[in-house]
Amino acid sequence: MARNEVPYKIYLTENEMPKDWYNVRADMKNKPAPLLNPGTHQPMTAEELGAVFCEDLVAQELDNDTRFIPIPEEIRSFYKMYRPSPLVRAYCLEEKLGTPAKIYYKFEGNNTSGSHKLNSAVAQAYYAKKQGLKGVTTETGAGQWGTALSMACSYFDLDCKVYMVKVSYEQKPFRREVMRVYGASVTPSPSDTTQVGRKILAEHPGTTGSLGCAISEAVEVAVSNPGYRYVLGSVLNQVLLHQSVIGLETKAALDKYGIKPDIIIGCAGGGSNLGGLISPFMGEKLRGEADYRFIAVEPASCPSFTRGVYAYDFADTGMVCPLAKMYTLGSDFIPSANHAGGLRYHGMSPILSQLYDDGMIEAVSVEQTKVFEAAEQFARVEGILPAPESSHAIRVAIDEALKCKENGEEKTIVFGLTGTGYFDLVAYEKFHEGEMNDYIPTDEELAAYRAKLPKVE
Amino acid sequence: MARNEVPYKIYLTENEMPKDWYNVRADMKNKPAPLLNPGTHQPMTAEELGAVFCEDLVAQELDNDTRFIPIPEEIRSFYKMYRPSPLVRAYCLEEKLGTPAKIYYKFEGNNTSGSHKLNSAVAQAYYAKKQGLKGVTTETGAGQWGTALSMACSYFDLDCKVYMVKVSYEQKPFRREVMRVYGASVTPSPSDTTQVGRKILAEHPGTTGSLGCAISEAVEVAVSNPGYRYVLGSVLNQVLLHQSVIGLETKAALDKYGIKPDIIIGCAGGGSNLGGLISPFMGEKLRGEADYRFIAVEPASCPSFTRGVYAYDFADTGMVCPLAKMYTLGSDFIPSANHAGGLRYHGMSPILSQLYDDGMIEAVSVEQTKVFEAAEQFARVEGILPAPESSHAIRVAIDEALKCKENGEEKTIVFGLTGTGYFDLVAYEKFHEGEMNDYIPTDEELAAYRAKLPKVE
Repeated sequence: MARNEVPYKIYLTENEMPKDWYNVRADMKNKPAPLLNPGTHQPMTAEELGAVFCEDLVAQELDNDTRFIPIPEEIRSFYKMYRPSPLVRAYCLEEKLGTPAKIYYKFEGNNTSGSHKLNSAVAQAYYAKKQGLKGVTTETGAGQWGTALSMACSYFDLDCKVYMVKVSYEQKPFRREVMRVYGASVTPSPSDTTQVGRKILAEHPGTTGSLGCAISEAVEVAVSNPGYRYVLGSVLNQVLLHQSVIGLETKAALDKYGIKPDIIIGCAGGGSNLGGLISPFMGEKLRGEADYRFIAVEPASCPSFTRGVYAYDFADTGMVCPLAKMYTLGSDFIPSANHAGGLRYHGMSPILSQLYDDGMIEAVSVEQTKVFEAAEQFARVEGILPAPESSHAIRVAIDEALKCKENGEEKTIVFGLTGTGYFDLVAYEKFHEGEMNDYIPTDEELAAYRAKLPKVE
Repeated sequence: MARNEVPYKIYLTENEMPKDWYNVRADMKNKPAPLLNPGTHQPMTAEELGAVFCEDLVAQELDNDTRFIPIPEEIRSFYKMYRPSPLVRAYCLEEKLGTPAKIYYKFEGNNTSGSHKLNSAVAQAYYAKKQGLKGVTTETGAGQWGTALSMACSYFDLDCKVYMVKVSYEQKPFRREVMRVYGASVTPSPSDTTQVGRKILAEHPGTTGSLGCAISEAVEVAVSNPGYRYVLGSVLNQVLLHQSVIGLETKAALDKYGIKPDIIIGCAGGGSNLGGLISPFMGEKLRGEADYRFIAVEPASCPSFTRGVYAYDFADTGMVCPLAKMYTLGSDFIPSANHAGGLRYHGMSPILSQLYDDGMIEAVSVEQTKVFEAAEQFARVEGILPAPESSHAIRVAIDEALKCKENGEEKTIVFGLTGTGYFDLVAYEKFHEGEMNDYIPTDEELAAYRAKLPKVE
């Protein structure tokens, strides 16, 4: 029986952990479009970006050519506190489904931030420290990114100012408290601590905030305080670079047992997890060395890949950030309040957007009731209570495994289990109480948001 | 540098995982005192215990002689979902403290129940299923045990009825919700679903409940419903047997690198974690093969070892359970409402009580403000947000490491990090707000509880 061949959990040794990040852009023929200055519509220079981001991160953001970028030893030391993360063979789920498919998941939730976000947070904090900065600012929605950044800043003794979407700040006091354990200051957004916050509050007095608005506040604070820079947990090229550690470990673990996946599945909000998980496999596909199916799973309530357009758009509501070419729903788009999990960003990583446009990735959208059904099924057999975000990938992994059952196919499916749901129990409660519904934006609504896209020649 | 010699995390392979539990009683010259029938004060027979507990568990409870008891394959399969747990070298904490001591912790929090409790829950659920039972009943305080049991019951398709101390039920709705994900029914205790609950409610209408009271309700439901048995997450001999998996893995991991600990530290409520962690090391000490210092850490607000008496006492408030000889504060004792964490049980495992009485274990009590200071210090350098219970052990591990610094001693310290604090953020918030205080019961209070101990011959 296969249970004896492959262990339940494949762990790499510390020596087998990646020493370099992999930069998938080096293998892309069609490079992701550059960020544009929102005023001039010219590509952002390193100097312009340096006002917002740390120097080394700017270099990584702009580097489309270097295939492997060494992971500094300080970051590798931090990684060793919670990595390598296990690649788990979902024997119990396979048995429950009665599928001939072999299912694996890369579990990134075994750290206090509860998700993969820590992989990039520690890198960004390290480079800020290296540059001699006092601190960093950021936004957070559900709070995973803010928690991860506060942990990283605490380790490197950096100040950390987090702008947290107001509705999350109020509904997720525990996330706030974890950030406080790590010494971060957390401000509900929009706030009166910034010009853009005051403007938004004046125009929309009752607003519960949005990611785009929190980004605008965090950027303003970074550029107006000497010794501060802004950091972002997803979307950017640099973040996908750092998150390649997920895919590199996954590939090394599979290679150890001679396993070749057929399908690789990840949830997609801004794209950091999916991009990181698939990147070394995508590299093989881009170089013509292997073929894989990649599936991006997004919420039907925030369908940037499946119903968005590929165009330059604002990254934030306040329009202070560079323009990014991406699959987008429009920077004003905010998913229905009924949507319980993360994956709420209006756009998608420029790298993944280009790859999707080139037909290298498939995308599906799923409704949240189906997502929570998959989450509960998974929790009961695999033990882990998954985050709602991660459960999007579970949903599609189960669907693909059931197709294998129908067709008698022994495919190997790998998905990213990005995090745990310990801070998402209000959503689980809604699910159990039947209070969850699956609002999907209408074509008319989406068209109205799209009409506000900036005109870039 | 030592960082190169021992990895941050020592993982056993699946083949190196224990195949037997270790029964420390086999090596004890002075066996733990038997449970007594509360009516006759005679030792409980297997038949009497069988009305409350599963057959196989009764056999384990009474077995003082068999040194190794095989772990059934079904349980080992379940263990593989979340075990082996890592033995972590606390390099970052050592560096922060500037101590020459080498600190290791066995981390049991990487599973959805958030603690070591799952190790015994799965065993107890398995034996219940094997006996063909419909379901099990139990009590839970903070909710770790109830969560663990609901996970195990879901896996083995058993009904699970949890009586949850009312104050926790109200203050920890998220724990409730996790149990619901796993299909358990959760009732706040005292409740009107049992005779003993109705009696307690009539006598103390405003009561917020206690563990002792929830035990009484769970036992009543088990004995009055055909096909049900009662299960308990700590104190009992069988539970310490199952938890020996913690110590066995710890010892195997240390042996792999030729490391001999000097001091082994665990928090102690009912004693399941401490007993499990130390048991194979205690075996060596009992057999004269090695020497170790064992330190039990308990809250100053519930000091059963350091200020209790070694005597037969009721295990529950309703006095329906057998009498156990243990270090106890009296079965009516309830720690101050200011006490934030678990470790609230009035008594201590009979095995550990005997070993403590024989001078084989030391015990210290610590105040909770100091405990949370240690918790936060640990979280910031080691990344993991610890449970308040586990943080008792962290406190004393840090204190011992600082003594090593003073004395220039390179001792090796191992402690049990039993769980994570994700569901304890209300307590962390109180700590940050300065609302935590360190109430310690007076001698007069303790004497009053002691006066109510049952008279046993």
